[in-house]
Amino acid sequence: MELSQLLERIADEVAPLRGAGTVADYIPALARVDPGHFGIALADLDGGVHGVGDWETPFSMQSISKVFTLALVLARSDEALWRRVGREPSGSAFNSLVQLEHERGIPRNPFINAGALTVTDELISLVGDATGELLAFLRAESGNAALRVDEEVAASEAAHADRNLALTHFMASYGNMRNPVATVLDHYVRQCSIEMSCRDLALAGLFLAAHGVRRDGSQLVAHRQAKRINAIMLTCGTYDAAGDFAYRVGVPGKSGVGGGILSIVPGRCAIAVWSPGLDKRGNSVAGVAALDHFTTLTGWSVF
Amino acid sequence: MELSQLLERIADEVAPLRGAGTVADYIPALARVDPGHFGIALADLDGGVHGVGDWETPFSMQSISKVFTLALVLARSDEALWRRVGREPSGSAFNSLVQLEHERGIPRNPFINAGALTVTDELISLVGDATGELLAFLRAESGNAALRVDEEVAASEAAHADRNLALTHFMASYGNMRNPVATVLDHYVRQCSIEMSCRDLALAGLFLAAHGVRRDGSQLVAHRQAKRINAIMLTCGTYDAAGDFAYRVGVPGKSGVGGGILSIVPGRCAIAVWSPGLDKRGNSVAGVAALDHFTTLTGWSVF
Amino acid sequence: MELSQLLERIADEVAPLRGAGTVADYIPALARVDPGHFGIALADLDGGVHGVGDWETPFSMQSISKVFTLALVLARSDEALWRRVGREPSGSAFNSLVQLEHERGIPRNPFINAGALTVTDELISLVGDATGELLAFLRAESGNAALRVDEEVAASEAAHADRNLALTHFMASYGNMRNPVATVLDHYVRQCSIEMSCRDLALAGLFLAAHGVRRDGSQLVAHRQAKRINAIMLTCGTYDAAGDFAYRVGVPGKSGVGGGILSIVPGRCAIAVWSPGLDKRGNSVAGVAALDHFTTLTGWSVF
Amino acid sequence: MELSQLLERIADEVAPLRGAGTVADYIPALARVDPGHFGIALADLDGGVHGVGDWETPFSMQSISKVFTLALVLARSDEALWRRVGREPSGSAFNSLVQLEHERGIPRNPFINAGALTVTDELISLVGDATGELLAFLRAESGNAALRVDEEVAASEAAHADRNLALTHFMASYGNMRNPVATVLDHYVRQCSIEMSCRDLALAGLFLAAHGVRRDGSQLVAHRQAKRINAIMLTCGTYDAAGDFAYRVGVPGKSGVGGGILSIVPGRCAIAVWSPGLDKRGNSVAGVAALDHFTTLTGWSVF
Repeated sequence: MELSQLLERIADEVAPLRGAGTVADYIPALARVDPGHFGIALADLDGGVHGVGDWETPFSMQSISKVFTLALVLARSDEALWRRVGREPSGSAFNSLVQLEHERGIPRNPFINAGALTVTDELISLVGDATGELLAFLRAESGNAALRVDEEVAASEAAHADRNLALTHFMASYGNMRNPVATVLDHYVRQCSIEMSCRDLALAGLFLAAHGVRRDGSQLVAHRQAKRINAIMLTCGTYDAAGDFAYRVGVPGKSGVGGGILSIVPGRCAIAVWSPGLDKRGNSVAGVAALDHFTTLTGWSVF
Repeated sequence: MELSQLLERIADEVAPLRGAGTVADYIPALARVDPGHFGIALADLDGGVHGVGDWETPFSMQSISKVFTLALVLARSDEALWRRVGREPSGSAFNSLVQLEHERGIPRNPFINAGALTVTDELISLVGDATGELLAFLRAESGNAALRVDEEVAASEAAHADRNLALTHFMASYGNMRNPVATVLDHYVRQCSIEMSCRDLALAGLFLAAHGVRRDGSQLVAHRQAKRINAIMLTCGTYDAAGDFAYRVGVPGKSGVGGGILSIVPGRCAIAVWSPGLDKRGNSVAGVAALDHFTTLTGWSVF
Repeated sequence: MELSQLLERIADEVAPLRGAGTVADYIPALARVDPGHFGIALADLDGGVHGVGDWETPFSMQSISKVFTLALVLARSDEALWRRVGREPSGSAFNSLVQLEHERGIPRNPFINAGALTVTDELISLVGDATGELLAFLRAESGNAALRVDEEVAASEAAHADRNLALTHFMASYGNMRNPVATVLDHYVRQCSIEMSCRDLALAGLFLAAHGVRRDGSQLVAHRQAKRINAIMLTCGTYDAAGDFAYRVGVPGKSGVGGGILSIVPGRCAIAVWSPGLDKRGNSVAGVAALDHFTTLTGWSVF
Repeated sequence: MELSQLLERIADEVAPLRGAGTVADYIPALARVDPGHFGIALADLDGGVHGVGDWETPFSMQSISKVFTLALVLARSDEALWRRVGREPSGSAFNSLVQLEHERGIPRNPFINAGALTVTDELISLVGDATGELLAFLRAESGNAALRVDEEVAASEAAHADRNLALTHFMASYGNMRNPVATVLDHYVRQCSIEMSCRDLALAGLFLAAHGVRRDGSQLVAHRQAKRINAIMLTCGTYDAAGDFAYRVGVPGKSGVGGGILSIVPGRCAIAVWSPGLDKRGNSVAGVAALDHFTTLTGWSVF
């Protein structure tokens, strides 16, 4: 079966799930997205990119940005980050402060909010304009120079940031914050508010399938670091559903409350799916189902 | 034995404890206070005030301010506050976020930091200039028009406020904050940074011994509310040493990391002590010892 | 007003509360008690004992036993106990394991279940037959040789002891248990299952009002230790309502889920009340109200 | 490179790590094992089994038993188990009670102690003699009729079981235990105390590589369930090091404090390693290193 046929078939199979689940509604800009959207795109190591459905419609990538900021930090400072953030699953709600207090300001991993705030703080220290750096990278990899921060979403996120501000000040109280809390928060919400399509995301994530090598052939992160990021995606990439995602999909993935998921098949391809309806643990209902079909049909699940 | 003799005797007995313990050192302005200071003052219901030692030397009242802001809120809104803050001992470190998460943004009592921040927020909503209101009250009761915020201490507290900012944003994320976090914090640190002497404090706290009646004869809070504040002081007034304080002193008391303690003997008098050396739970070593002697010698302990 | 008149008046005032609240129903033997019971008894330092209502009807004393086992341990080993158990309020549900894990097997105070289990364990080590020792003491003080364990209640408690067994094994895993868990549990449930009337309880608790002196004039615990027990009763004696109890009643008290409360007015008297209907925090509705009236009418509240 | 050569090469590479780490010493029978042991065995889908080093020396399998009891339960009751235990990483120490209290007696996954105790309880309800059932299965798959419980280890584990007894009683207090606590504990410690060699273990675990099919061709668990078990092994199989294990080894694995690890390459083979020296998170130092080399050399890591 050809790839485009495969993607069509997956889209058909998950069609009944379009609109299932609940669209994130903690900010108005996300709440008014049509839950019926569905798109899937696949970028392979040969440079090809295929898609079906709404695969070229931009959406808010939200927490998927955490994968890219992590990679940009590891690209520059290698192992230094791990003194400030762990690499193990958290087992709590993604924004709990309890574990953070127990572990004296060291977040469990880079994909819970506390950890991602630390990563953003580190990236600011390394490059200054962390959001600019991220945008430049995403534009280069996706070949889409139009990528931008959705300023309305960013403003709305900033206006609902008390929990993240609590996390950041809390880490600062343990000495685990280098830059002013307001600066870190500003970059964090702007990074989450970047709009990308499935096509853009699949291309931007391809270096993780390519052992750390960018589309222009340069090495962004060492093979070892790409492996590391993939391992963290598999064990911590889908909030409190990592075990279920590993079972159903069986390859690394990182989801966002905008309804997107970026999944990596190391050595083969990157796949991005999007459908705004979320299950009760915050992952796209149709998106997880599509990835489940994909790895089952291709036999590329780990298990 | 006359009161002044009694106070002299207490001062003699605790003299060996002057300088014992550790001066609070998390901000420079507090760290450089001479640990050898000791003062004690007693204000009785007849309007007399007596003191020995450094009883007229101003010091940073810190958490003792929590008693007064609580009274000012209860004076204006009676029971409404208790929807936002509890009245039971906390059993945790005075600044823990764990309990706050477990109880969804409702602090255990008004004397842990989270609770006092809620009280300050409520006072801002009620009167606007919460710090101005507090200063006006303290000046009126102490008859000391010179009372003021130590701006150096306030600035230093504000620069070390990450833990309190985390608490405030955290409560805001549960909808338990009415005013901007920055505004609440600003008033909170300025209230804690007011300088008062033992003399000033004893006079200002006298209404709690007088069933809620101010020195000018007006009723600040109902008898019932004075009783309530005293009960909270006895069970929650000395951080994680409330049980020990109840045992040793046996009357309500509220301590601050500046080394001051305000104690109330309902129906009789208010006593303020000051000595900057703190025990490991944050209470003045010589101050607790002096109050212990006082209630033992007078037989005014509850027990 | 004479004492008997005072008690009559209190009984009249709380009559509308008879039957209010919920009878403890976790074991059948407690669940079938008539919620309409109410009794109150007062024992004074002159040896007199007065009562009204069902003051001579035996009921299950449950957690009130914790006061007596604590006193019996302190009578024999003075301060040694405090290496194994704290003396501060717990701020959590009375049977939570979280705090116990955080503090590595050391319970917060002797009146939460974990702490009382430690006290029982200590008493077994000191005297062997801990329940026999307790019964002998209670019989001697109350002058009631018929006091006994209600074996049906004890058997029922033992059959519903998983939470207490978990607490005891958990402390044992930290090395804070000297005797076999089954032995400690057996004594603990039998102690809780002793039946006493208000009259018996008031007489048995009188030593706490008498600075540690028993009815026969011998000293059970030092004055200092009686003060300590009273302080712990005031700050920790009524589960998660210690702050409210201190406010309303203003003297030390210890409640049990059988609906009894023992209260102490140091230097004056011991009062026992009983009414089986409990509020949502496990304290007798009519019992707390009666003690509230009592300290208000006598002016013996601390506050 | 042939398999035996591959295993030889791995054994050579990890030789310097023999004796590194710390042998489990909480019971004497484990503490006296020679830390210098190292063995590795591989069973492939064709029925072949290869090994080097101490691959035929029996050792205490400890927590590796959790994989097999889980499979035996799923074989009989399919999805029913998941009402009593979760399938997500725990993020806490493997024996913490905090999470268990937060989640009202439902353990996070079947590989933390609380979860495995639930699985054992379920297996007792399903088959009665849970340990006999497990032994029969292990003997059949390994072809080793001599497999047995090491009774000395079992007795020693039973004598140090306070933490596990606390967990079990705690779950019972939430209604999540069907059989008497003593019965469950007895089976649990006996299951952990079964002695197996790397050879035995690799053969016994082969069904997980074979999509649920036993060596005799019968289906033990559905393909779907084998996938599920493998996913739980990958995300929860190595205590608080699952993220690191996923990164380094990249295939499912379950470790035990006896120094063994069983790893599965779905569709290919089962590998068992043994070396008693543990890292600070309780996993065999030389064992993890050997598996790391193995998946690197074969290219069978997920990542």
